[in-house]
Amino acid sequence: MMRWSGQGNPTICVIAGDDSAPEVVLPTVEILRHLAPGLDFRPALSGREAQERYGETFPAETRAAIDSADCTLFGASGGPSRPILWYLRWGKETYVNIRPVRWFPGYNSPMRNPERIDYVIVRDNLEGMYPPREGNLAELAALPSSTGWWQAPPVEKVGAYSVRLCTDEQMRRVAVAACELAVQRQAQGYPGRVTLGAKYSIQPRTDGRFREIVRAAVSEYAGLTYQEFLIDDLARRLVAVPETLDVVVLNNEHGDILADAASGTIGGLGLSPSACYGEGYAYFEPVHGSAPDLAGKNVVNPTAMLLSGALMLDYFGYAEQAQALRDAVARVYREGAVLPVDQGGQASTTTFVEAVSTHL
Amino acid sequence: MMRWSGQGNPTICVIAGDDSAPEVVLPTVEILRHLAPGLDFRPALSGREAQERYGETFPAETRAAIDSADCTLFGASGGPSRPILWYLRWGKETYVNIRPVRWFPGYNSPMRNPERIDYVIVRDNLEGMYPPREGNLAELAALPSSTGWWQAPPVEKVGAYSVRLCTDEQMRRVAVAACELAVQRQAQGYPGRVTLGAKYSIQPRTDGRFREIVRAAVSEYAGLTYQEFLIDDLARRLVAVPETLDVVVLNNEHGDILADAASGTIGGLGLSPSACYGEGYAYFEPVHGSAPDLAGKNVVNPTAMLLSGALMLDYFGYAEQAQALRDAVARVYREGAVLPVDQGGQASTTTFVEAVSTHL
Repeated sequence: MMRWSGQGNPTICVIAGDDSAPEVVLPTVEILRHLAPGLDFRPALSGREAQERYGETFPAETRAAIDSADCTLFGASGGPSRPILWYLRWGKETYVNIRPVRWFPGYNSPMRNPERIDYVIVRDNLEGMYPPREGNLAELAALPSSTGWWQAPPVEKVGAYSVRLCTDEQMRRVAVAACELAVQRQAQGYPGRVTLGAKYSIQPRTDGRFREIVRAAVSEYAGLTYQEFLIDDLARRLVAVPETLDVVVLNNEHGDILADAASGTIGGLGLSPSACYGEGYAYFEPVHGSAPDLAGKNVVNPTAMLLSGALMLDYFGYAEQAQALRDAVARVYREGAVLPVDQGGQASTTTFVEAVSTHL
Repeated sequence: MMRWSGQGNPTICVIAGDDSAPEVVLPTVEILRHLAPGLDFRPALSGREAQERYGETFPAETRAAIDSADCTLFGASGGPSRPILWYLRWGKETYVNIRPVRWFPGYNSPMRNPERIDYVIVRDNLEGMYPPREGNLAELAALPSSTGWWQAPPVEKVGAYSVRLCTDEQMRRVAVAACELAVQRQAQGYPGRVTLGAKYSIQPRTDGRFREIVRAAVSEYAGLTYQEFLIDDLARRLVAVPETLDVVVLNNEHGDILADAASGTIGGLGLSPSACYGEGYAYFEPVHGSAPDLAGKNVVNPTAMLLSGALMLDYFGYAEQAQALRDAVARVYREGAVLPVDQGGQASTTTFVEAVSTHL
């Protein structure tokens, strides 16, 4: 994973997010504070709370808090906090999204042999089809390339288009991030294998170019190996042969889809951490939503948030503490006495976090 | 599924395809001929064979054979036959792709409870991002909408774009096909539930419009119910809760990716049939590739081709024969004595087909 390059005690902007998200954010902050007393946590308001206090869901105060911190720990957006998420991504240019996909004994996986699942998805976080760039089909007639396409666009029909963007610059830095991660993992005993998934057969100028760039990047690392699959085939492989994956590099929308399918294989979004890194900023969030139906019930699985917190500890150089946190979470699952509701248990959020704490 | 509306004995153009594909096509034709003697099979050349005989991989003779038949039974393309596949899709305007996803006892699924898997993916076969429509980023400056986008395209950077197309007309007929299929399945005891997967949150003009159109179509069928999920969440659901799916409707690229992931859940591409229907034409093909490494070895799993043949029998009104063929395949797997290599057995293609034949 990437490392913070700053000096002194890092500051962390804490945005608890919407609906049930604060129920996992706040106890996670307590644990992180305990593990790494040098970290300086600074809460900022978002969503409905910000609306009540400042009259808007993303006030200047919150933006300033994000900017003055070294990273943001973010709960989950249920809508009101979405502009903040977009600011964290495009405003702070956090260009790569890291999604570890690893099964621990005790996770309630739907797979027959989930012990084979231990890889990381590295995803473009800025380009492709998000944010949206859409318009009426008729507009496409203005594109100089439109007559050169295999099939000219049906500009006379009622309909819309959407544009996907790929810059060499962004594809290159995502590719390099994947390689750097593969090198780090190799030092821990992983095979040092970068796997590209893309539709290079049908999208030569965009996905085909991505393939060229990833191939070139991997070739600059003597110890790494490379494999590539069409994105549809890779989607099958993460179900059928996940043990063949180490570091998987994907564009924005492919990563969006496949990372959630991958979460499904280990036992759900409640278990899946996520980190987004830029040149000088990072944010950490669980990938599950804000689960409005669960708000106030103290039942949301805090695992994804805790493991996202472990990624944050890694980022700031607290590798030992990060591993201790992961080990404590793994131990609670392995023992099996205290399991969250989404994993077939009956433990509340609070009870689960307490069980993790006792192992720290 | 859709039904042929012609009169008399239908004719079927048989294109065996590249590499190992003929090894599953030819025995399947024998079985279909036996089951439905009224069918008139007419072979046509493609790929390397066509190259040798006519000097091109897609000669006028083959095109004429496709045009004069009522449908095409297609093996698989390993490259040389790809222009034929494109003609079958865009030339014959076969606008909807049907991908049944069903586990039978004996299939070597990686899932813990594969008996829950029994649904159908209905996919746009013509639009979206295939065929490719790409160009240099600088060209986007010509789009009148470009300045109105949430983030203007980085037209000054080195890179490329790709365009996705969605016409109301095509989305509507795909939606109707999904509804009609859900009605047919409901008569067989399925719940009559249409599930949309799309990125309507981020792509309002295209995927959001698709959502509107599918919602409207389903509302015209009193007995059907509707549910929708973001495409990333649906990708997770087909791994985690496949039992909640009945008829799933998707755009072209989402269907491409999710249908292969779905194949992974039942035990692989060797088991996955496919049919593509237009207003007056259809083609049937297994979704696996041409497996050049297996060519001449007599080990390719013929199940996908046989089940695609069953879909063809359904299309021409041979419902009883189609069911007999599916039952025979299911029985061979259930008995487990004769299993193809990709399912953990040792049976050759020929041996497996013979086992199916003995149950007919």
